[in-house]
Amino acid sequence: MTTIDTETTVGTETTVGTETALDTDAGSWTTAARIYNSTVASWAISAAWELGALDELGEQGALDTQEFATRHDLDPAATLGMFRALASVGIVHRDGTRITPAESFAEINRTRSLFHWLVRGSGELFRQMPTVLRNENRHGTFYQRDAIAISRSCKEISTFCYDAWFWTAMDGLGFVPRVAADLGCGSGERLLQILRRHPGTRAIGVDIAGDSLKVAETDAAAAGLGARISFVEADMLAMDPRPEFAEVELLTCFMAGHDFWPREQCVATLARLRQLFPNVRRFLLGDATRSVGVADQDMRVFTLGFEVAHDLMDTFMPTAADWESVFAEGGWQLRRKHSIDMVANEVIFELEPR
Amino acid sequence: MTTIDTETTVGTETTVGTETALDTDAGSWTTAARIYNSTVASWAISAAWELGALDELGEQGALDTQEFATRHDLDPAATLGMFRALASVGIVHRDGTRITPAESFAEINRTRSLFHWLVRGSGELFRQMPTVLRNENRHGTFYQRDAIAISRSCKEISTFCYDAWFWTAMDGLGFVPRVAADLGCGSGERLLQILRRHPGTRAIGVDIAGDSLKVAETDAAAAGLGARISFVEADMLAMDPRPEFAEVELLTCFMAGHDFWPREQCVATLARLRQLFPNVRRFLLGDATRSVGVADQDMRVFTLGFEVAHDLMDTFMPTAADWESVFAEGGWQLRRKHSIDMVANEVIFELEPR
Ligand SMILES: C[S@@+](CC[C@H](N)C(=O)[O-])C[C@H]1O[C@@H](n2cnc3c(N)ncnc32)[C@H](O)[C@@H]1O
Ligand SMILES: C[S@@+](CC[C@H](N)C(=O)[O-])C[C@H]1O[C@@H](n2cnc3c(N)ncnc32)[C@H](O)[C@@H]1O
Repeated sequence: MTTIDTETTVGTETTVGTETALDTDAGSWTTAARIYNSTVASWAISAAWELGALDELGEQGALDTQEFATRHDLDPAATLGMFRALASVGIVHRDGTRITPAESFAEINRTRSLFHWLVRGSGELFRQMPTVLRNENRHGTFYQRDAIAISRSCKEISTFCYDAWFWTAMDGLGFVPRVAADLGCGSGERLLQILRRHPGTRAIGVDIAGDSLKVAETDAAAAGLGARISFVEADMLAMDPRPEFAEVELLTCFMAGHDFWPREQCVATLARLRQLFPNVRRFLLGDATRSVGVADQDMRVFTLGFEVAHDLMDTFMPTAADWESVFAEGGWQLRRKHSIDMVANEVIFELEPR
Repeated sequence: MTTIDTETTVGTETTVGTETALDTDAGSWTTAARIYNSTVASWAISAAWELGALDELGEQGALDTQEFATRHDLDPAATLGMFRALASVGIVHRDGTRITPAESFAEINRTRSLFHWLVRGSGELFRQMPTVLRNENRHGTFYQRDAIAISRSCKEISTFCYDAWFWTAMDGLGFVPRVAADLGCGSGERLLQILRRHPGTRAIGVDIAGDSLKVAETDAAAAGLGARISFVEADMLAMDPRPEFAEVELLTCFMAGHDFWPREQCVATLARLRQLFPNVRRFLLGDATRSVGVADQDMRVFTLGFEVAHDLMDTFMPTAADWESVFAEGGWQLRRKHSIDMVANEVIFELEPR
């Protein structure tokens, strides 16, 4: 159909276009590749945890992607893709379909819940960054997160960022609470642990996310603790008094206290909690706090994502010093402070009514 | 309320819990931090491009986050968060609110559209990885992507991955097409460029995504080319004949041809295109192709994300050799092949009816 002879060029690999403005050749885009592949790997870490692949690798020391896919009824090609992403940044080795842990497997496996929080729990918030930044959009429900993924993440984050210090505080209470209430209870795991430790104690979990409470209720029933725990779907900043609150002697609030802020609202909330829980004897308040004086390029795992997420959501994130400046005014006395600082300046404050 | 003396411990920073099973201290989680912060940075790259911050930094050499936020009516704290994420991995320097390009700015600015494709265009697909992997979920519409973000990305990806080679092919046509049709036209930019180059040519854009076509129509009108171009919302794999297709002399299809596959469907589609466009003289088919023999840890920017995304979506991604094996059977003759290989083994095939 054309007059150009087709024979001469077919089959030769002709590369043309070197006259373009490109001053960087593809092979040298190494920083871009590292950032890019790390991002794909973050999703893969989150997924591999959720699907049980990280546990299996940690426990068995190897797996076959094909066999893993079959056993879990997963698509084999997509499953292989997940492991390729992990291999691309040195989390696993891949030899065909055989996967073994690589250099950074232990570190990543330990921190996997932080990745899950970022990409599965908060991924849609970050994806919408350009929309969320615009003032015209910042009212009403202007972002979406995955409440179930966040409470799943927090359940595990708690085990290495808070639990040891939490139990030190619990052991130092000097009394066994008749009833414990957890504000922003998420998965309910903290209360279940308290119930297991103290067979005479009952518990109340408060959370604003109905989805998470449903999971928490199922978990409590499965643990055989359903009869000793009840869940209240309510906003801890604005909830009404309830008769059962009068029995509460221990109040806990973990990874949710920053929602009390800004300052004025925090003082009012602290004061209001004293009224809502008139017989409370101790309040264990544990949360991440905003970093002070850390350069952007020195941010540890989690901190940057955590702080930027809260900036996007317009949630004030107090420093530890901010917290210490409100307790007295809110009607509480600081009894002891545990500076944990595992990944995001976590602190547990032991408070008592003053 | 308790018998424990509060005075002695208040104000001391007590760190406890070294008895826990943690064998890694927070400071040594460097691989995790790098992968984590890279992920936050990917979202920030995508957002900073969309909001014009990368262009401004490239052109002006500096900006002030506060002033930038005010000028664009953005939240100042959230805007600062975006730049902190860029600073965390060395894309920009930050000194308070003053931002300047850092070492890898040029590289990232050049490849920003690839990041946008990944996190803004395909982010929800990747976020749902654990859901999407399960066979039980892999039917019907089992994933979501952002069509507008993808066509915005591809418009720029085209400029450095295809355009130089595309115009070489165009210049070698040996005729000026009366009508050009682009399959999977997305933003419509390729057709607009053809119309600008050839004032006597008309164009037809075919795409399955109505959202993208709306943007394309607006762009065409804004460019004063609305009268010479029409858009058809249709599935290129299953579309009906149309009278205006008979006038088409040049067919193009860029970054969409892999949707012809798997093999049997590709052969059938190639054959069907000859019937739908009976007077076509040349078909320029440009696409990324699956990498062959590249180790996971040597993946360049884009390739890994591109291939894993298609594995998640269950889209077959042919190699260059796969393509070369179908043309004759589909009724086309390969006239010339341009092996570009900029980021994901891009190839442009020049085909003519046989
Ligand atoms: C980061 S999670 C922590 C969950 C749990 N405390 C733990 O330690 O794993 C924060 C929880 O606080 C809840 N929350 C946030 N704002 C709240 C509010 N105003 N009232 C009640 N719950 C709230 C969220 O729904 C979420 O379950
Ligand atoms: C990666 S984009 C490329 C856009 C454009 N060709 C370019 O070069 O910038 C792929 C486009 O193909 C479209 N597409 C995918 N499958 C299609 C189908 N079956 N029929 C028509 N268009 C399709 C998508 O909606 C999207 O706009």
